[in-house]
Amino acid sequence: MTVPAPAADGLPTRVRIHEVGARDGLQNEKATVPTEVKAEFVRRLADAGLTTIEATSFVHPKWVPQLADAEALFPQVADLPVDLPVLVPNERGLDRALALGARRVAVFASATESFAKANLNRTVDEALAMFDPVVTRAKADGVQVRGYLSMCFGDPWEGPVPLPQVVRVCRALLDMGCDELSLGDTIGVATPGHVQALLTALNEAGVPTPALGVHFHDTYGQALANTLAALRHGVTTVDASAGGLGGCPYAKSATGNLATEDLVWMLRGLGIDTGVDLGRLVATSAWMADHLGRPSPSRTVRALSHKEQ
Amino acid sequence: MTVPAPAADGLPTRVRIHEVGARDGLQNEKATVPTEVKAEFVRRLADAGLTTIEATSFVHPKWVPQLADAEALFPQVADLPVDLPVLVPNERGLDRALALGARRVAVFASATESFAKANLNRTVDEALAMFDPVVTRAKADGVQVRGYLSMCFGDPWEGPVPLPQVVRVCRALLDMGCDELSLGDTIGVATPGHVQALLTALNEAGVPTPALGVHFHDTYGQALANTLAALRHGVTTVDASAGGLGGCPYAKSATGNLATEDLVWMLRGLGIDTGVDLGRLVATSAWMADHLGRPSPSRTVRALSHKEQ
Repeated sequence: MTVPAPAADGLPTRVRIHEVGARDGLQNEKATVPTEVKAEFVRRLADAGLTTIEATSFVHPKWVPQLADAEALFPQVADLPVDLPVLVPNERGLDRALALGARRVAVFASATESFAKANLNRTVDEALAMFDPVVTRAKADGVQVRGYLSMCFGDPWEGPVPLPQVVRVCRALLDMGCDELSLGDTIGVATPGHVQALLTALNEAGVPTPALGVHFHDTYGQALANTLAALRHGVTTVDASAGGLGGCPYAKSATGNLATEDLVWMLRGLGIDTGVDLGRLVATSAWMADHLGRPSPSRTVRALSHKEQ
Repeated sequence: MTVPAPAADGLPTRVRIHEVGARDGLQNEKATVPTEVKAEFVRRLADAGLTTIEATSFVHPKWVPQLADAEALFPQVADLPVDLPVLVPNERGLDRALALGARRVAVFASATESFAKANLNRTVDEALAMFDPVVTRAKADGVQVRGYLSMCFGDPWEGPVPLPQVVRVCRALLDMGCDELSLGDTIGVATPGHVQALLTALNEAGVPTPALGVHFHDTYGQALANTLAALRHGVTTVDASAGGLGGCPYAKSATGNLATEDLVWMLRGLGIDTGVDLGRLVATSAWMADHLGRPSPSRTVRALSHKEQ
């Protein structure tokens, strides 16, 4: 169905989707996907019009066995005419990424002490100190750096996260040299007013909106409403995971990544350009769901796949 | 987790949830639920703080066998201190409802000819003519009347529905005497700009916002973002289905009713009062999901139920 695109007051005309399915998605799936399938997945995502595709992670395989094939995968997709950021946890990871010619990297910080301890076994400041040489060296090499920030809204141990606490870590990441931040609602508890409040607090602290991306989870179904609030604030970089990978609704451990297709459906309806061909993207996610042996958690993928049958 | 409630500019301070799970939800479930379980369900919904609970339908049992027990059910819940609207398709249905003491009824119109034909076997105007004596007689009896309007945004056969077409049927229902309309996105294709455009067009045609409720489906995951757009426009009546009943994600026929819990999570986060106790509501939907023998499609129900285990 062709969807009408009524004038959407105060919204951007174009949004860049930062596609995280191949990294954030697959690292949270139980099944380990063969390297060739991952490479085909990234190629299909590029073919569907996505221009920023996070390809893999150079975290130690002990922590993320699903992405242990980073060295084998990256060269298979490096020639694609798209941006292919990769996650690097430390200098060792950066070395591995640079050796393969990666031109965009991302570090993964936490806004809360509890999650920094649980995920990185460090305090927030110790983690920032670990990232400092990574960012400095990457920038010296002309490599773009994204700073992920987890638990920007709520934390499973600490509850709601105070805005000044998030602002402080954002400032530290930008001062370190990060080109862009991704504000993560890792446990999916945020609501639109909270999103608006955080973005405003960041602006008041001198952080410009163009440096901010948003990364919402659908754990409580709030991701698109939160995205709408961020768009109204002027945000034009939105993270999403093709087919909702990493957020399987059938597992108790569902992280609930926002599905790229659900996002594209909304943006298309709002008349906001993304460059994405929704039909190709749905076909890609349906194909990956087959590989994983379970239906996609994306509502749009389910609706459009059923229609085709 | 206690969720902060930052000031939400331009949003209402209170929203009335029109709970449709017992009617719209159960009539779309495959399993037929025993009358005693339905009555217990309605009682639990009232106990959770919902104040408008659509109880059942007086459609001929041939069309909706799941609700064939309307006569047996209604007296079991009639004493609850909440509003209990019931669906009446025609004068025969109205007679049945009035005989049981119903004080609120609803008629079910279509904005498109294709759906009027498919659902009511009438043209749009023939259906309106059928409702006219229903509304007139109900109003003469002091009974409040809600007018549902299906396919206000997209239609599976006709595609996008022109705004003037929707406005015309809305005007006809209000002129007939309906106290309130429920604008239905029956196939879930709407996006926030389209919602804003329809509400604006209705205002321009003299329809005041307080007469409008919204009824969104999550078929493409858009229901909460659309709700946010409606709230920003001043809408304060929102339809939702406890546990997402009627929108099973495991069935191809998923209609995708917005889950009341996902709505309450957002409204609570926005500092908007609903009077609903989310914990009790989640427990009720988890209990009903057990009766139906499958998990709730509500993301919030799944997230909070898992947490409790």
